[in-house]
Amino acid sequence: MVNYIDINADLGESFGPWQMGNDSQLLKIVSSANVACGFHGGDPLQMYKTCQRCVDNGVAIGAHPGFRDLVGFGRREIFGCNPDELKAEAIYQIGALNAIAQSAGTKVSHVKFHGALANMASRDEELAKVLFDAVMSVSEHLYVVVIAGTKQQLAAEELGILMIKEIFADRAYNSDGTLVSRAEPKAVIWDPEQCAKNMLEAVNSGCITAINGKKLEIVPETICVHGDGREAINIAQAIRVRLESAGIKIRPFAKQTIRNQSLN
Amino acid sequence: MVNYIDINADLGESFGPWQMGNDSQLLKIVSSANVACGFHGGDPLQMYKTCQRCVDNGVAIGAHPGFRDLVGFGRREIFGCNPDELKAEAIYQIGALNAIAQSAGTKVSHVKFHGALANMASRDEELAKVLFDAVMSVSEHLYVVVIAGTKQQLAAEELGILMIKEIFADRAYNSDGTLVSRAEPKAVIWDPEQCAKNMLEAVNSGCITAINGKKLEIVPETICVHGDGREAINIAQAIRVRLESAGIKIRPFAKQTIRNQSLN
Amino acid sequence: MVNYIDINADLGESFGPWQMGNDSQLLKIVSSANVACGFHGGDPLQMYKTCQRCVDNGVAIGAHPGFRDLVGFGRREIFGCNPDELKAEAIYQIGALNAIAQSAGTKVSHVKFHGALANMASRDEELAKVLFDAVMSVSEHLYVVVIAGTKQQLAAEELGILMIKEIFADRAYNSDGTLVSRAEPKAVIWDPEQCAKNMLEAVNSGCITAINGKKLEIVPETICVHGDGREAINIAQAIRVRLESAGIKIRPFAKQTIRNQSLN
Amino acid sequence: MVNYIDINADLGESFGPWQMGNDSQLLKIVSSANVACGFHGGDPLQMYKTCQRCVDNGVAIGAHPGFRDLVGFGRREIFGCNPDELKAEAIYQIGALNAIAQSAGTKVSHVKFHGALANMASRDEELAKVLFDAVMSVSEHLYVVVIAGTKQQLAAEELGILMIKEIFADRAYNSDGTLVSRAEPKAVIWDPEQCAKNMLEAVNSGCITAINGKKLEIVPETICVHGDGREAINIAQAIRVRLESAGIKIRPFAKQTIRNQSLN
Repeated sequence: MVNYIDINADLGESFGPWQMGNDSQLLKIVSSANVACGFHGGDPLQMYKTCQRCVDNGVAIGAHPGFRDLVGFGRREIFGCNPDELKAEAIYQIGALNAIAQSAGTKVSHVKFHGALANMASRDEELAKVLFDAVMSVSEHLYVVVIAGTKQQLAAEELGILMIKEIFADRAYNSDGTLVSRAEPKAVIWDPEQCAKNMLEAVNSGCITAINGKKLEIVPETICVHGDGREAINIAQAIRVRLESAGIKIRPFAKQTIRNQSLN
Repeated sequence: MVNYIDINADLGESFGPWQMGNDSQLLKIVSSANVACGFHGGDPLQMYKTCQRCVDNGVAIGAHPGFRDLVGFGRREIFGCNPDELKAEAIYQIGALNAIAQSAGTKVSHVKFHGALANMASRDEELAKVLFDAVMSVSEHLYVVVIAGTKQQLAAEELGILMIKEIFADRAYNSDGTLVSRAEPKAVIWDPEQCAKNMLEAVNSGCITAINGKKLEIVPETICVHGDGREAINIAQAIRVRLESAGIKIRPFAKQTIRNQSLN
Repeated sequence: MVNYIDINADLGESFGPWQMGNDSQLLKIVSSANVACGFHGGDPLQMYKTCQRCVDNGVAIGAHPGFRDLVGFGRREIFGCNPDELKAEAIYQIGALNAIAQSAGTKVSHVKFHGALANMASRDEELAKVLFDAVMSVSEHLYVVVIAGTKQQLAAEELGILMIKEIFADRAYNSDGTLVSRAEPKAVIWDPEQCAKNMLEAVNSGCITAINGKKLEIVPETICVHGDGREAINIAQAIRVRLESAGIKIRPFAKQTIRNQSLN
Repeated sequence: MVNYIDINADLGESFGPWQMGNDSQLLKIVSSANVACGFHGGDPLQMYKTCQRCVDNGVAIGAHPGFRDLVGFGRREIFGCNPDELKAEAIYQIGALNAIAQSAGTKVSHVKFHGALANMASRDEELAKVLFDAVMSVSEHLYVVVIAGTKQQLAAEELGILMIKEIFADRAYNSDGTLVSRAEPKAVIWDPEQCAKNMLEAVNSGCITAINGKKLEIVPETICVHGDGREAINIAQAIRVRLESAGIKIRPFAKQTIRNQSLN
């Protein structure tokens, strides 16, 4: 039986004078934060403040590198980039956050790629390897958060990089393990209690129930929640409450993994 | 008598498709490179390539953080920035280069601030302290290059940060140790042999001769040369040749300092 | 006696995914909008949407050019810019909005400079002339909104450009006509009814009462209100209600001026 | 028989301190310039200077809008953009150049889309219509330069927009009218005299000879030449010399078209 699970969310996405997200509420719910590194959101001062707040709340810090696309918030797929350039941009962003985290008295524990870059890496194993190679070149102690069952996971396994498998709290799964497209009516799960019920089941059973009822063997190591909109916070909150009521502690995967390793 | 001196120049200032500078020539002349970190010039891939070339040429790598002002190349003075923001921006840039240098098999040895940010810090001790504090928060092993005789030097001395004092090869000095304003006719020294003669004298005597003939006690630890324009390369080359002919080796100040420390 | 007055506010300051301001509420209060042009805020799609909403609400459109400083929101003073560059940047921003306004079926009626650029032009007549010269080169039919009693007004008078004098609803005035510094305790007027009372008096009497009780002859042609924060909307709303209750119509200055011209 | 032809090239691609291209040489060869508008290259001051130089050399000015991608120089294909956003960005760029051209005493005669945006519009008729719709909303007098035989041409014909068909001087054509892929060995024609010979034949016969010898009916209205590299200038120069020797005048298509219209 599992006693621990991690919950992660994207934080620190404000930029200059513009605010975004519900960071103060999320910081009380999640155990890991993916901090925007300035290319699609975030700026150095924002990054510093977010690191400080993570320290204050006992939340683990991850780098959240994205495409250099501020106006599009890193959500547009950009083709034709030189792989060396994408690798250098990833190292740049992770290194920048690493130094800022250190100046806030902590350090970066993981890397989760953002938006379009993550989506492209889910489909393109070569791209995923370029990005994960960047992570390894910064530090061999960094974990990558991979979308379970995608080319990201394959790439991580082949590289032998430290890896944490992620599931989504508010999305329906197809029977092959991919996410139901947002174009479909039941792609997104809006009911907080339903999301919470699903996550508890997934954590306890090591299975996700696909939209057609099939059981998928996906052992979750971290649950991704969102912070934009009142509803998202309610979902995140419901998940935490349900899991804790069932005796499952919410804590950063880094600690989790260390525990698992010492047990083996 | 001095056996060693460092020569530094700004490198890696190209951006995306745009080339700048004579990096390949400078890399054969200088012992330390100040590498643009993406805010006023440079981009992650450029930074990576520059680090590799520095490794290949045995040139020490420094971070060269500037204002976030690409179109103005960091040469415009920006007032009204939050000190915390400037500190975070400096850490961000140094950390980014640090990670990139590491992925190229080397590391950052020093930090020299760029353009308008450096000029403002030369006049404003509080600002200099904010910036040098940023350097120290990244690593206590990093040196800052300070413009000798300015508020930068004062700030560095008060903070107790590792410091290297810089003189300019192609600029005339006033009798109070400040640079003759570029508005004055004799501010810039255009003759390579004159520059080289001055630098040899400064290194050997620990003095710079001001424009009125007065001897200023400024013991140089690094000589700044430029790379823009045919003339600049000639000056840099002439200085290296003259110093080497006099038996003075050109090498990174980091090594220099280590030697000095071991002698004490 | 005056029958009409204009109320203006800054709108369209959102950028990419980041929202800013209370545009929908302001559009029901003001008669003129100063639309951010992409350099300190706003982006092309945002500009288009804002123009459409201005058309729908009968609000006149002005360009609101600022320094190229997104992260600082155009609020930091940048020194050392080439005047030709500042002129070209102003023309660029006004021209861009002009074309977008036209595609939304309307046109730009005025230009009001933003933030640090406006502040610098209030103190520096030469700079104000460079900027207003840019306005005139786009169209001789464009008005500039000037801060009454500053170097902006002097520059506009010397150039003979169409000009609208602005007063601030929520700021106290010194006896020499300048604004009380925000460092002073009574610089900002927080009470909506007090702001409204002051504005009605100013419109009716052509005088502003300074903080020491002195009457300043400043005939307002437009009243500047803000949109950030609940309080700001209340102030703007209170001014509109008070003025309308006193029989003063709120309408764009362009119409006002045309009326005045036809009367002469 | 044809007496006139236009030659166009991309100009004004420098950015801030970074120079690009051989504008001064190209300005003596071409009759139309496509001026970068700040999103992938160029900046407001650069745009102003380029317009002035076009006026001095009797060269027609076109807007050259691209993706907002400075570091990638607009050469990367970006997917997932909102069509309204792309339209607004095109209007923004064209409007900005229009105002700057006007301040330099001239006006914009045409629009040619840049890099990845142009390539995507060559394959995607809907995208081409969005972009050309943007052109028409700025002015019905603006021509679009289309890559002959692509979806760009189809879109322009359906919209009824003023159109100029372009051929490439240094590229081989497939028998279906598309360009031979750069991956193929003979895709690029490096010999200036061969390029010049081909262009003269195309202008005189209204046909291009495909790589397999087939004659393609493509009546060229403008010839695209490049400016990067010594070779490119030689090719452009050879074409101009060859055409003029054969009695064909090089002049802007706007004039050409007006002449054609008056003849009909």
